Amino acid sequence: MKAIQLGDLALFQSSDHKTYLQPLVAGESLQTHRGIVAYDDLVGIPWGSKIRSHMGTTFTVNKPTIRDVLLQIRRSSQIIYPKDLGYILLRLNAGPGKTIAEAGTGSGALTMALAWAVGSAGKVISYDRREDMQTLARRNLEKIGMADRVEFRQKDLGEGLGKDPLDAFFLDVPNAHHYITKIRPMLPSGIPFGAILPTTNQVSALIQVLQAENFTNIDVCEIMLRFYKTNPARIRPMDRMVAHTGYLLFAAPMPLENSEADNLDLT
Amino acid sequence: MKAIQLGDLALFQSSDHKTYLQPLVAGESLQTHRGIVAYDDLVGIPWGSKIRSHMGTTFTVNKPTIRDVLLQIRRSSQIIYPKDLGYILLRLNAGPGKTIAEAGTGSGALTMALAWAVGSAGKVISYDRREDMQTLARRNLEKIGMADRVEFRQKDLGEGLGKDPLDAFFLDVPNAHHYITKIRPMLPSGIPFGAILPTTNQVSALIQVLQAENFTNIDVCEIMLRFYKTNPARIRPMDRMVAHTGYLLFAAPMPLENSEADNLDLT
Amino acid sequence: MKAIQLGDLALFQSSDHKTYLQPLVAGESLQTHRGIVAYDDLVGIPWGSKIRSHMGTTFTVNKPTIRDVLLQIRRSSQIIYPKDLGYILLRLNAGPGKTIAEAGTGSGALTMALAWAVGSAGKVISYDRREDMQTLARRNLEKIGMADRVEFRQKDLGEGLGKDPLDAFFLDVPNAHHYITKIRPMLPSGIPFGAILPTTNQVSALIQVLQAENFTNIDVCEIMLRFYKTNPARIRPMDRMVAHTGYLLFAAPMPLENSEADNLDLT
Amino acid sequence: MKAIQLGDLALFQSSDHKTYLQPLVAGESLQTHRGIVAYDDLVGIPWGSKIRSHMGTTFTVNKPTIRDVLLQIRRSSQIIYPKDLGYILLRLNAGPGKTIAEAGTGSGALTMALAWAVGSAGKVISYDRREDMQTLARRNLEKIGMADRVEFRQKDLGEGLGKDPLDAFFLDVPNAHHYITKIRPMLPSGIPFGAILPTTNQVSALIQVLQAENFTNIDVCEIMLRFYKTNPARIRPMDRMVAHTGYLLFAAPMPLENSEADNLDLT
Repeated sequence: MKAIQLGDLALFQSSDHKTYLQPLVAGESLQTHRGIVAYDDLVGIPWGSKIRSHMGTTFTVNKPTIRDVLLQIRRSSQIIYPKDLGYILLRLNAGPGKTIAEAGTGSGALTMALAWAVGSAGKVISYDRREDMQTLARRNLEKIGMADRVEFRQKDLGEGLGKDPLDAFFLDVPNAHHYITKIRPMLPSGIPFGAILPTTNQVSALIQVLQAENFTNIDVCEIMLRFYKTNPARIRPMDRMVAHTGYLLFAAPMPLENSEADNLDLT
Repeated sequence: MKAIQLGDLALFQSSDHKTYLQPLVAGESLQTHRGIVAYDDLVGIPWGSKIRSHMGTTFTVNKPTIRDVLLQIRRSSQIIYPKDLGYILLRLNAGPGKTIAEAGTGSGALTMALAWAVGSAGKVISYDRREDMQTLARRNLEKIGMADRVEFRQKDLGEGLGKDPLDAFFLDVPNAHHYITKIRPMLPSGIPFGAILPTTNQVSALIQVLQAENFTNIDVCEIMLRFYKTNPARIRPMDRMVAHTGYLLFAAPMPLENSEADNLDLT
Repeated sequence: MKAIQLGDLALFQSSDHKTYLQPLVAGESLQTHRGIVAYDDLVGIPWGSKIRSHMGTTFTVNKPTIRDVLLQIRRSSQIIYPKDLGYILLRLNAGPGKTIAEAGTGSGALTMALAWAVGSAGKVISYDRREDMQTLARRNLEKIGMADRVEFRQKDLGEGLGKDPLDAFFLDVPNAHHYITKIRPMLPSGIPFGAILPTTNQVSALIQVLQAENFTNIDVCEIMLRFYKTNPARIRPMDRMVAHTGYLLFAAPMPLENSEADNLDLT
Repeated sequence: MKAIQLGDLALFQSSDHKTYLQPLVAGESLQTHRGIVAYDDLVGIPWGSKIRSHMGTTFTVNKPTIRDVLLQIRRSSQIIYPKDLGYILLRLNAGPGKTIAEAGTGSGALTMALAWAVGSAGKVISYDRREDMQTLARRNLEKIGMADRVEFRQKDLGEGLGKDPLDAFFLDVPNAHHYITKIRPMLPSGIPFGAILPTTNQVSALIQVLQAENFTNIDVCEIMLRFYKTNPARIRPMDRMVAHTGYLLFAAPMPLENSEADNLDLT
């Protein structure tokens, strides 16, 4: 890895585990009550270095991973967390070159994860009816230089989706079950469909609609992530943890007029 | 998505949730005690279709996601599961174009996940001292057409690593702590380092060595995945679940001779 | 503890963790495919001893705890498990001398736990409409000599409860929410009320009725119990675990005609 | 249940879930920033009532369960929580009339749970080398009128235990493994032995000593308790939960000189 340069995004972590994600702008500096670090002084230092602020506090400076970025984004709504995002990417098959649509945009955590995963050859289409959310998400994407991979569409899901050759679709909106019938015709058959739902009532409501709308392979799960203390003589979980972020649901839409396929005798 | 074609990889799922991952070879067929399905008959049918075997059993036919593939690979050792793999990819920043090394290869589940995530512009370097494991992993990769993204190196970690411009490194070997000192000089400073460890004793041992070898930002966690039954009138978790696969550890190697960096007064 | 005597209940555990709960009847013996142990031969041996069957298999012989008994009872229905029972006892305040009612009896696991906890000075009232269940539960209680602490009432909850000076009430019936309005008048105000529910739909339905029927302090939780392997050099959870038994709900009925209390200005 | 009387212990819960455990002393009152409630005004009101402070805030007044009491005790050390206590009682077979010893006393949470469970016919022996802890625990027990069931022994475990006809023994001290060899001779064979341990390192160390000291049926587990929000239209877990309190270990000491028993051919 090349050494630190101006223009890079850097993750500072203090010895008491406080983190700061900052673009290294010439002439600017990290300003915390743990002291100041001038970015110009970091140029040429290897990533991973331990540095000292003018107050003597030490920080490590690392090149942020996509996970680091996701945990630090500006948000004005609940975001999807890395524990769920990693699994969602695998379930949506969101690899390089794919075209994935999501609704809604929210603060853009999933948008960023998808843009990162599909790469410069892929594409993310992000629906939200709120302009302010998409403005925020776009800014978050610009910080990591991936805004050009995302097409924002300010649109209410109740009006349906555009016609796109989607490889997967993800739903993260309140009352997801209200929109299935409307968006169903625009979902290519057999693509991975996913959703995140905060309550069991919504899980129940969404499953009902999906069954009625001919989705198969419906799968519901939740992911719990527990961190451990890292004193090697005292291995044990942290005292507290996040107990719930959301239920994940995955399914696949069957062909809509598949009566022929359905009745084929394939012997 | 294009319709089903010969040469595709297909995931068949029976109504009782039994799944079969098969390449659609001309003239061949899916043969189960739930009946036979001739692949030639599937050509042109849309993905997601429900088909019927000669015995009348219905199957859905879907284009497998990377997660589907990972759950179905041939294995001769414990594999890393999707719940852990998705999170590992985010923590290693294993996106398109990256170069990632892992040891050991094992049955190749992580190798495949990495190859999928880094894309055709990326590269995976996979170390294992056992030739049979690498042969198995290579075959698994060939099935998904990604073998060319992986460089297998049959080598004991005790001999160290090659010198490569790595973006991340992952360790999945028995007694991981035995190898850190040896491989440490080949790890670029600041890159994401990860490991999966079956026991708390190994977590403790690895943390001790990492601390001695100047790794920072050490983080340990475990991920629990719980599936739910999908009867919308009876939402509840499945009766049983996987209780443990492994502990995940992440860290970052500091520059080795960073005394200067360490002592810089960066005001 | 006195040594083993005929008439005692004994828990045999083989070296491969298979357990047998047996009353030590004169002239009889433990008969397993791991060998035979004549009970007469055990008399006078200290509890906790390791013995050997005629086939050479070793067994430990322990005085069973109430938990051991509960795991081994004959059942013809889903039982409540010790992980939940222990917590239920604390939440119901089911200590020595108390009078606790439950519905339904089922196979009697909770009945036994309650009878054990309230002691010979306490009383358990157990409702079930099925005679066969109560016959089974009574036999289970007779084995531990506590049948006299339980009054079985073969009655449908839809007919309400008897008028008893209850200290707590527990509900373990399908569709618990159907019965609240009927039994509400027989529940002394302020007593601990508990229920176990298999699905989130039933949790939702029960909360709605409880709120309408003036219950307060409604509390819902679930308990997960994870066992560990006990090789001291390889501490880690077992591979699999029970993912779900039921959701626990607790509440307290307010006085029914408490308009006066409600409006008192208690300054 | 009789109506509220002076001298009772009462649990006040405000509508925003803040709880207060108070003895109802004549002439005194509950004083919170949510308002004042004079205890004399509560006399004769039914338990479970909703009352109003002089500021208009409503409180429910309930007879506390042993679980309510345990969550509210004065503490100067980490206590064992109800989720663990309920299970411990079942595993120790700590029912009415039993004699149970514990070390150390700590703030007395387990002491109280044991005293409650063994009843007035039972006995708890509680060891701790610190006088201040035992003074605190005694006061906590006096508040629930159960101090006479407990014999406090201010003694270092390194000196061993007294000789008592124990029915069970529980260990909750730092470095539990240091004391096993010393206390082993005073443990009647076959009694339930339990311990709570904060770290996996201590679990490992204790198992090693227990194996060396001829304990059998060693069992290790952890209990996770997750609360749910109780809006019936939005059933979901709380946002955060306790991730760890301790690992529970249970075992049974074999007879010390059981070579005869061990070698008996019991056919």
